[in-house]
Amino acid sequence: MSKGQVFIISGPSGSGKDTVLKLLLNKYPEIKFSISSVTRPMRVGEVEGEKYNFISKEKFQEMINNNDLLEYNEFVGNFYGTPKKPVENAINNGEDIIVEIDVNGAAQIRKKIPEAVSIFIMPPSLELLKCRLNGRGTETPEVVEKRLLEALSEIKRAEEYDYIVVNDLLDEAVQGIASIIVSERLRLSRQYGLINEILG
Amino acid sequence: MSKGQVFIISGPSGSGKDTVLKLLLNKYPEIKFSISSVTRPMRVGEVEGEKYNFISKEKFQEMINNNDLLEYNEFVGNFYGTPKKPVENAINNGEDIIVEIDVNGAAQIRKKIPEAVSIFIMPPSLELLKCRLNGRGTETPEVVEKRLLEALSEIKRAEEYDYIVVNDLLDEAVQGIASIIVSERLRLSRQYGLINEILG
Repeated sequence: MSKGQVFIISGPSGSGKDTVLKLLLNKYPEIKFSISSVTRPMRVGEVEGEKYNFISKEKFQEMINNNDLLEYNEFVGNFYGTPKKPVENAINNGEDIIVEIDVNGAAQIRKKIPEAVSIFIMPPSLELLKCRLNGRGTETPEVVEKRLLEALSEIKRAEEYDYIVVNDLLDEAVQGIASIIVSERLRLSRQYGLINEILG
Repeated sequence: MSKGQVFIISGPSGSGKDTVLKLLLNKYPEIKFSISSVTRPMRVGEVEGEKYNFISKEKFQEMINNNDLLEYNEFVGNFYGTPKKPVENAINNGEDIIVEIDVNGAAQIRKKIPEAVSIFIMPPSLELLKCRLNGRGTETPEVVEKRLLEALSEIKRAEEYDYIVVNDLLDEAVQGIASIIVSERLRLSRQYGLINEILG
């Protein structure tokens, strides 16, 4: 059986990454999604086990000690990490799995899984990015400015990725990522043994 | 503007390649198709300028002399070749173009256009391949046997290709090739300048 493939997906705040991924996973339920372990408190609207497993700092430290994480980082006193086991299981079961992660986490995963395919979701323009970040209306101008600077520094690192999907039309962006996943399954290197199988 | 991409598509007799390509080009009319120049007589049902330009041996020799062909070969006294100009035009206009060709022609084109992406259309099983070749009912057993041997020797060279698309379910095969074409457009290397364009 062919091995599964890891798809690293990144995109700055304002890229619309969350919406794209939600639609993609609804449309292609066979694609697995890597659930991050985090120590920050759950926010309103979040559901345990959907995008995150909310765990204690002690439990997180235990995962670090046991080498149970593919990557992790600390951000304003909280830990965020990608558990290793579900990713390994997907690969071994021939399933595709998406790891949604920032540019730094992506770099860490690439080192451990060099064959991972990485996709950067890009806002269609700087103006629209600013507008989307402002439009949330829930943040102070300082927070919006900080998010924008972070987004710009992530965009500069888009050249580390294999593919760039511009999220202009939502359906096209979803279809673009789906096309990448389907085409990667058709690669000669993913179809080991097929030729001999056909020749019998 | 990004350059167009050349997609080499091969597949043995019985792979269903012609039907797959017909559906693909109907569904995605923006994809160009390279029309071969041939010196053999037109067969019943063929249309000048659809898959082939039917030209004289003198004209073909002229194309060889003028270096107007990307590749060519001789087969039982007739010449078959891929004109260079339409392929170059497509690349320079940012258009994708499909070159349908056998494994030997594919190898020649790969040498001249190393960045070409190659796709092999594979019959789903040896049994079905035999059945399809027999099923035409228009050939003698000797011709069927010869076609089968040719098909097997082509299949052995499928490992020279970037992608293998098994033509089991026709729609899936068409969608598979479309996914490869779409995903290749999303490659970082095809989106030169995009990051700076977004950053403004």
